[in-house]
Amino acid sequence: MTPPITYDGRHLLADLYGCPLLGDAALIERALRDAADRAGATIIGLHLHHFGEGHGVTGVALLAESHMSIHTWPEHGYAAIDIFLCGARHDPDAALQSLSDHLAPTRIVRHLIRRGEAP
Amino acid sequence: MTPPITYDGRHLLADLYGCPLLGDAALIERALRDAADRAGATIIGLHLHHFGEGHGVTGVALLAESHMSIHTWPEHGYAAIDIFLCGARHDPDAALQSLSDHLAPTRIVRHLIRRGEAP
Repeated sequence: MTPPITYDGRHLLADLYGCPLLGDAALIERALRDAADRAGATIIGLHLHHFGEGHGVTGVALLAESHMSIHTWPEHGYAAIDIFLCGARHDPDAALQSLSDHLAPTRIVRHLIRRGEAP
Repeated sequence: MTPPITYDGRHLLADLYGCPLLGDAALIERALRDAADRAGATIIGLHLHHFGEGHGVTGVALLAESHMSIHTWPEHGYAAIDIFLCGARHDPDAALQSLSDHLAPTRIVRHLIRRGEAP
């Protein structure tokens, strides 16, 4: 029996290592806006929090298609990203490529999880 | 060789099925606030978007310890949750239990992903 699909969502988690500029809130904002654009997603709200000079940034974009987030630890060169997008028209990998272009990691570890398929 | 741990984060994704009241933005806000409290996390920003009468709600809590989000589809009784918390002191399962108490699903599917361990 084919399981019923309640909602077809893709949730991409990516760990970015070796990033040089993770304390720059303006860069994080540009990265989120460009990633949404590249994925064909619509931003309905964008919220940033800078934890202070030399510390990390949290950025969350609320999307018509769900959300994207970045949390950064500049002291480790590490950024944790999640990209949650509904529908086959929107490509989380395109968003990740855009974020990667901005953040310039030396290494990426990714996990893709399907959401909303009742087993 | 033990791999270096850059950052010890736990990211819990949960699909909640059979939820009765997912169009109620006030309920979603209470659920997020109580979940953060139950996990011992600190809210630094809480943002809600209601997609209109009979439609879903997106809620995101920016936390000192990363973030939590809910996206709801009342027409399917379906809610997609993610809870991303740093550090062993903060328990994503406690947050999920609190959200579940509010949203009353008949079924939960969960995935726990470790974040920030450079392999």
